Amino acid sequence: MSAVDVPVALLGYGTVGSAVHRLLEDGAEEIERATGHRLRVVRALVRDPAREREHAAPDGLLTDDFGAIRKAGVAIVAEVMGGVEPTGEYVLELLRGGTPVVTANKQLVARSGPELFAAAAEGGVQLRFEASVCAAIPVIKLLRESLVVTNVHRVLGIVNGTTNFVLGEMEGGHSYAGALAEAQRLGYAEADPTEDVSGLDAAAKMAILATVAFGTRVPLDWIEVSGIDTVRDEHVAAARALDMRVKLVGDAMLVGDRVGVRVRPAFVDARHPLAAVEGAFNAVMLHGDAIREITLEGPGAGGLETASAVVADMVSVLGTGGTGFLNADPVRRSLERLPAGELRSPHYLRLEVEDRTGVLARIAQELADEGVSVARLVQQPGDGHAVLHVVTHEAPAGKVHAALESIRALPEARRRAVAVPVVSSRGVAELGWT
Amino acid sequence: MSAVDVPVALLGYGTVGSAVHRLLEDGAEEIERATGHRLRVVRALVRDPAREREHAAPDGLLTDDFGAIRKAGVAIVAEVMGGVEPTGEYVLELLRGGTPVVTANKQLVARSGPELFAAAAEGGVQLRFEASVCAAIPVIKLLRESLVVTNVHRVLGIVNGTTNFVLGEMEGGHSYAGALAEAQRLGYAEADPTEDVSGLDAAAKMAILATVAFGTRVPLDWIEVSGIDTVRDEHVAAARALDMRVKLVGDAMLVGDRVGVRVRPAFVDARHPLAAVEGAFNAVMLHGDAIREITLEGPGAGGLETASAVVADMVSVLGTGGTGFLNADPVRRSLERLPAGELRSPHYLRLEVEDRTGVLARIAQELADEGVSVARLVQQPGDGHAVLHVVTHEAPAGKVHAALESIRALPEARRRAVAVPVVSSRGVAELGWT
Repeated sequence: MSAVDVPVALLGYGTVGSAVHRLLEDGAEEIERATGHRLRVVRALVRDPAREREHAAPDGLLTDDFGAIRKAGVAIVAEVMGGVEPTGEYVLELLRGGTPVVTANKQLVARSGPELFAAAAEGGVQLRFEASVCAAIPVIKLLRESLVVTNVHRVLGIVNGTTNFVLGEMEGGHSYAGALAEAQRLGYAEADPTEDVSGLDAAAKMAILATVAFGTRVPLDWIEVSGIDTVRDEHVAAARALDMRVKLVGDAMLVGDRVGVRVRPAFVDARHPLAAVEGAFNAVMLHGDAIREITLEGPGAGGLETASAVVADMVSVLGTGGTGFLNADPVRRSLERLPAGELRSPHYLRLEVEDRTGVLARIAQELADEGVSVARLVQQPGDGHAVLHVVTHEAPAGKVHAALESIRALPEARRRAVAVPVVSSRGVAELGWT
Repeated sequence: MSAVDVPVALLGYGTVGSAVHRLLEDGAEEIERATGHRLRVVRALVRDPAREREHAAPDGLLTDDFGAIRKAGVAIVAEVMGGVEPTGEYVLELLRGGTPVVTANKQLVARSGPELFAAAAEGGVQLRFEASVCAAIPVIKLLRESLVVTNVHRVLGIVNGTTNFVLGEMEGGHSYAGALAEAQRLGYAEADPTEDVSGLDAAAKMAILATVAFGTRVPLDWIEVSGIDTVRDEHVAAARALDMRVKLVGDAMLVGDRVGVRVRPAFVDARHPLAAVEGAFNAVMLHGDAIREITLEGPGAGGLETASAVVADMVSVLGTGGTGFLNADPVRRSLERLPAGELRSPHYLRLEVEDRTGVLARIAQELADEGVSVARLVQQPGDGHAVLHVVTHEAPAGKVHAALESIRALPEARRRAVAVPVVSSRGVAELGWT
């Protein structure tokens, strides 16, 4: 890569692909200043070159033939077409043949990581994937380049903007259905929002983040996932009374030689950095030995934001070309799964019981029997019953759920009791109730 | 840099230097995995090799002779000794001679940037300086590598942990003097805290950040600096009533072809990412065309955190060696200074006036005469006078201060009126008063 003029190709020329092209053209001078090279897009693979596009491509750029990309002799390929097939086959062939690839494809990286990195190692080139997680937020670069010697042992993330927007609207007084409809109207949510609201999109991103952070393969099916469709107004109100906010939190922990990951609605202390993540933004917090904690926040989606990350990766490929840097699979060891029941955190419990003598004692006993200790308890009168708001000290999720099952089985139990993990940097005993 | 074993040297072996040495040894395997090289510290320059140290150095490592460093034939030097002289001369000589240098020295970079980068260009090597600003927070790497094609037009930062801690203690009910004493007790503040509380430390960091972000030289004397020693309990209380927090904010703006930078106490909306920065932590928020805004938060000081950034820079030098990447001065153009009076933001004003008919009208007129428009006004009765809390719409600081001077000159004026910039991502009209 000693030539000043460096030909590159795109797989895909939709919103992201055309934005990558524009950023490379508009920023050509800056890239040349930083790297000594000019990136020139010479080919872009699309399904139908004749289709009308919002941003028209120059004549001769578009092709529907992967063979034309193969023969173009490019120095870098950016994959922005999405999908798993045939995209994966194209990327594998390019890497094996010695062409560095930059991808924005979360599903491809989460599902086919091992094959892709093996192909990159075979070809002696880099596979970069910053844009596959949280768009322009440079968390992959930070993990792989800045934190090489730091033992990162926890990754907390708000990695889905759609659900963060919906939860914010609910805090503003909207119902879940109303908030979701508003997200769809603004283009934050798909017509079929299942992938987002179920937590599956967040889980794919957490799988990539945990794999890179801990250096061990974290498959999707290791992750305990619970979406936001179970969040009710009463949870939002309870969180507010505790000076907390309801967020869909991805939580990946390295505990000893085991790794646990979950994606769940959680109560986040208003003073915790993740609580300040507004609207459709994303944030990732990394805990590590030498850094204590670093939080990155920004737009987690958007065509231009994603394109910006793709271009940053292309610049990084140029800046490290031929040094052997980051040619290896980020996976360096094989750790065991920490079962979801062993993930520890404080929990918020909401219990509705008949207002009878002795019921509080029985509930306290069920919690104590599982070794779950109460940090804070507020009892409110309801309509012929009592509502108990409990915040526990840190406890394994399995123990909390076992206690919850026993409480649900009590004759005094009314509505189904719920438990929500709490994320707090302060001690939970310091939390107030307003 | 094709050898697996890469000898490096340290200038300085204090808290940071010895931590760099330990991180390089403990992380040797990880570094080799990422780069193909092993970094080995072969020499460290100190004033007195015989002095007793908390972390003893191996025999033969320490030397008080810079000539020994010069002759050691090392591939990278990490400068962690601090000071401007003779440190600057050592670094210049190394760079000119073709040795890449990594530095943690804020004063050196802020004062001698032009000479240092010229020397690096002459030697055809990199000068990296991540650790000189906000320790482990990778904001320099983000600006120089990930945001090459992004026009960054604003940098907002809480870049001094000491003052952030003191202001947090004041919010908790302590006096300024009590909070400062607590910061000194905990080791967050020096015995002579002037550099921190005056805002000068933050100004040096903002000079570096603005220079890199805007690609133009921002000298220290361009920066309008005001410290936290003028912050009173009543300001903290007023901020709380507005659901804001008092923070020492560095604010660098690119407006057209001019650059303005100030460091001042400001009221930060509780929902703004900078409001969540607790204790001695730092945060930097970047606004740019393709990224909207990205915020990085983490520990802004500490020996291990600073060492972590130094090691990250050394890894990056290895990973980019010989590619020509980032050998150029981050300064690529020469922009003019935007006078401090032209920096625009909403402002909070606190006015104490005699409670007489017509005084409110006169104050409103003085503001209107300078074109400053009122978004929110709360009048509270005092002891024989009235306290007015005003939040203005966005206005140039110069106009706000001119209006303030006129108001101070009114016969009804009591205590000296003050103005504080407001940082808010929401419209100021949405702010409440409790």
